Amino acid sequence: MNFDKITDRRGTHSSKWDKMEALYGLSPQNGLAMWTADSDYETAPCVIEAVTAAAEHGVFGYSWQHPEYLQAVQWWMKTRHSWDIETDWVLTSQGLGNAIALCLDVWSQPGDGAVIFSPVYHEFAHKVNKAGRTVTECPLARDGDTYNLDLDDAQSRLNGTEKLLLWCSPQNPSGRVWTAEELRAVADFAKRNGLILISDEIHHDLVYPGSTFVPMDVAAPDARAWTVTLTAPSKTFNIAGQRTGNMIIPDPDLRTAMRHRQNTLDYDPSALGVAMITAAYSPEGAEWADAQIAHLDGNRKLFDETVNALPGLKSLPLQSTYLAWVDFSGTGMSRAEFIRRLREDAKIATSPGDGFGTGGEFMERFNLATQRSRVEDACRRLTAAFSDLQ
Amino acid sequence: MNFDKITDRRGTHSSKWDKMEALYGLSPQNGLAMWTADSDYETAPCVIEAVTAAAEHGVFGYSWQHPEYLQAVQWWMKTRHSWDIETDWVLTSQGLGNAIALCLDVWSQPGDGAVIFSPVYHEFAHKVNKAGRTVTECPLARDGDTYNLDLDDAQSRLNGTEKLLLWCSPQNPSGRVWTAEELRAVADFAKRNGLILISDEIHHDLVYPGSTFVPMDVAAPDARAWTVTLTAPSKTFNIAGQRTGNMIIPDPDLRTAMRHRQNTLDYDPSALGVAMITAAYSPEGAEWADAQIAHLDGNRKLFDETVNALPGLKSLPLQSTYLAWVDFSGTGMSRAEFIRRLREDAKIATSPGDGFGTGGEFMERFNLATQRSRVEDACRRLTAAFSDLQ
Repeated sequence: MNFDKITDRRGTHSSKWDKMEALYGLSPQNGLAMWTADSDYETAPCVIEAVTAAAEHGVFGYSWQHPEYLQAVQWWMKTRHSWDIETDWVLTSQGLGNAIALCLDVWSQPGDGAVIFSPVYHEFAHKVNKAGRTVTECPLARDGDTYNLDLDDAQSRLNGTEKLLLWCSPQNPSGRVWTAEELRAVADFAKRNGLILISDEIHHDLVYPGSTFVPMDVAAPDARAWTVTLTAPSKTFNIAGQRTGNMIIPDPDLRTAMRHRQNTLDYDPSALGVAMITAAYSPEGAEWADAQIAHLDGNRKLFDETVNALPGLKSLPLQSTYLAWVDFSGTGMSRAEFIRRLREDAKIATSPGDGFGTGGEFMERFNLATQRSRVEDACRRLTAAFSDLQ
Repeated sequence: MNFDKITDRRGTHSSKWDKMEALYGLSPQNGLAMWTADSDYETAPCVIEAVTAAAEHGVFGYSWQHPEYLQAVQWWMKTRHSWDIETDWVLTSQGLGNAIALCLDVWSQPGDGAVIFSPVYHEFAHKVNKAGRTVTECPLARDGDTYNLDLDDAQSRLNGTEKLLLWCSPQNPSGRVWTAEELRAVADFAKRNGLILISDEIHHDLVYPGSTFVPMDVAAPDARAWTVTLTAPSKTFNIAGQRTGNMIIPDPDLRTAMRHRQNTLDYDPSALGVAMITAAYSPEGAEWADAQIAHLDGNRKLFDETVNALPGLKSLPLQSTYLAWVDFSGTGMSRAEFIRRLREDAKIATSPGDGFGTGGEFMERFNLATQRSRVEDACRRLTAAFSDLQ
C-alpha cells in the first residue's frame, strides 16, 4: 500500500502514457500525463493477489456471474454507501462507457435526445452523438467555487425529444457531491419529463472527508421505476483496463429490458474481471480505498495550494474525485494561450475543459491519481509556466 | 507443458465443473464434466507469464488495440494458416458468441432468417432465436462417418427471409475439415442467396495430422464482399473465460458497419484479454499448440478405440476439434435410455446431441480436452454403463 512508489507505465500499452505523444505531441520522456482518468500507482494488494492466483491456477475457462461476486457488490454498497441492494439487481457491464451506450441503445432511438448537465464528463455527449442521439445541454449554475442545479433553466431547454437524463454523481469534472435533496429534485425532474434517469456513480468511493455521498436510490427510492444506477470498481481500484462494471437496476421492468439486450448481444463478463471485482469489494479492498483517499487528499491539498497561489488560476475545491478542475479565466488569457503554456512550457497533458461542454471553456482537468512526487513536479511546472503572473 | 497434470477446477467458478450439479444433477465429487468446450489443463506458459507480468506491474489502467496485438494476430494467421491479412482487418470482439450476436445485430433485423447446416454448434440456433431472428435449418448429408454438404437440398429449404449464413469451419460437432472446393461452394451459395457469410473458424488450430484447414478467405478470396471471419484464441489456448476474440473483415464496407456498431456500443476489449492474445499468438504459443494437438490426438485415439469396441456405439473419426461426436443409434436404445445410462450410470455430463439440431437426435458430444487419465476414466465408465451390449 504505497501510493508514492514510482511505477513506470511507459511502454506498457498505457493509453495515458503511451498515446500522449500522438495526441498531445508530448514525449513520455519529459511530458507529464494528467489526462486519462486512471491512476499511476498499483491497485490494492487483494486485487493483485486475485490475478496472481488466476495465473497460478493457469486455467482460464468459462465462468459466470457467480454468487460470491454478486454478494461482494452487495456488501460493498451496504458497508460503503449504506445502500441495501438485492443481488439480482446487479447486471455486469463491459465497463461504465459500455453501460451508458447500452442504456442509450435500450431506452432511446436514433434522433431522440439525452439531457446532460454541463460541464460534465465529456464522454456523455460523445456517446450520445456517436449513437445518433442528440444532446440537450443544460448548464449548471456556477456560484463562485460551486456548481448548482438550475432546474427551471433546464426545463426551458428541453425540446420534447429527450428520453434519458445522463446524471453524474459525484460530479465529474467539478467533484461536486450532491445532497439527498438535490438528488430528489433531479429524480422529480426526470419523472416530470418522462426521462429514464441514468445515474453514473462511478466516483462514489472517492469522496473526501467532510462530504457524504448518497446513492440516487437511497435519496430517491420512489424513483426506482425510472432509475438505473451505473457503478464500477475501475476508478476506485484502478482496474479500468479490465472493462468490467455493474449496472444496479431495482425495477424489474427496466432490468428485464437491459438483461434482454445484453442477452441478444451475447454479453458475458470476463472471468478475471469478475474475480477482480470480487477481490476488490472486500474488507481488504475497503482498507486500501481508505488509504488511497488519504493519499489523494494530500495530493489535492498540495495541488490546490500551489495553483491557487498563481494569480488568475483557480483550482476549484474538490468534494470528491481525483480530478482537479482548474479555472484559467482569471488570467485574462485566451484558451489558446493557456493551453500553449500547459503543453509547450509545462509539458503537461490535461483533459481539455471545453470538451466538458458549456462552462468548460476556460477550464482544464488535471488527474491527481499519481505519486506525490509527480504532483510536486506538476506544481513546479505550472509555477514556471505561469511565473509571469506572479 | 504437461497436459496430464491434474488440475482441480472444482470450486474455481468453472462453469463446466461448478454448474454440473445444478444442470446435470451430477456431483463434482464423482461426476465427470465433458460438456462445456474448454480444457481442463493449464494454458500455455507464455500466456500465464503475460498474466503474471500484469499482476507484477499492478496497474490495470486503460489500454487499446495496440499494434503488437494486431501484428500477433497477423503473424498467427500467416504462419499457422497461410493467410495473409492486414492488421486493420482485425476487430476485437467480446468472444466468439458476442461476435455472432453482433453480426446478427448488424446484418439482419428481427424476423429475418439465418441459415445453419445441422447438426452444428448449438449456440448458432440459440443466438439466432434469442435475437428474434429465425433459423433456416439445412441438414448436412451423413454418409457413414462423414458429413457432407447438400446444397441443392439446402437451396430448397430457403424461404427468402434469410440474410446470413452461419458457417462453422472446422465443423463443430463433427470435426469435419472442409476442403477449399467445399468452401468455395458455400461462398457461392451465400452469394446466390444474398447472404452475408459468417465463417466461425474458432477451432482452426485444433486440426489432426492428415487434415489441412483452409480459411474461407484463402479458399474464396472473391467472396470478401460478403464474408466475415470469426476467430478467437479461446479454444486453442483455453482462455474462453477472458471473453476476447477477433473478427477479421477484409471488406471495407462490412468492416465499417461492424466498427460503427461496436463504437455505438462503446465496446473496447479488456487489456488483459489483449495481452493474453498477444502472448498466445507467438512462437512459444505455437510450440505449445503443437504439443497440445499431439496430446489430443492420443486422447481421441484412446477414446475412439474404447467406444467403438462397444457394440452399437460409434465415435465418429475426428479431423479436428477436441469434441468427440458419438452415435448411439446402433444400440437401438431410446434417447432417454442412453442419456440415463450416461448420467446415472456413467455419471458423465456431455453436451446433448439433440441441441445441435437435425441429425443430433441419437448423438452426444464428449469434450476430450482433459488429462489422459480422465479420458481413461470416461472409457471405464462408458464400458461399464454399456457393458450389457458386449
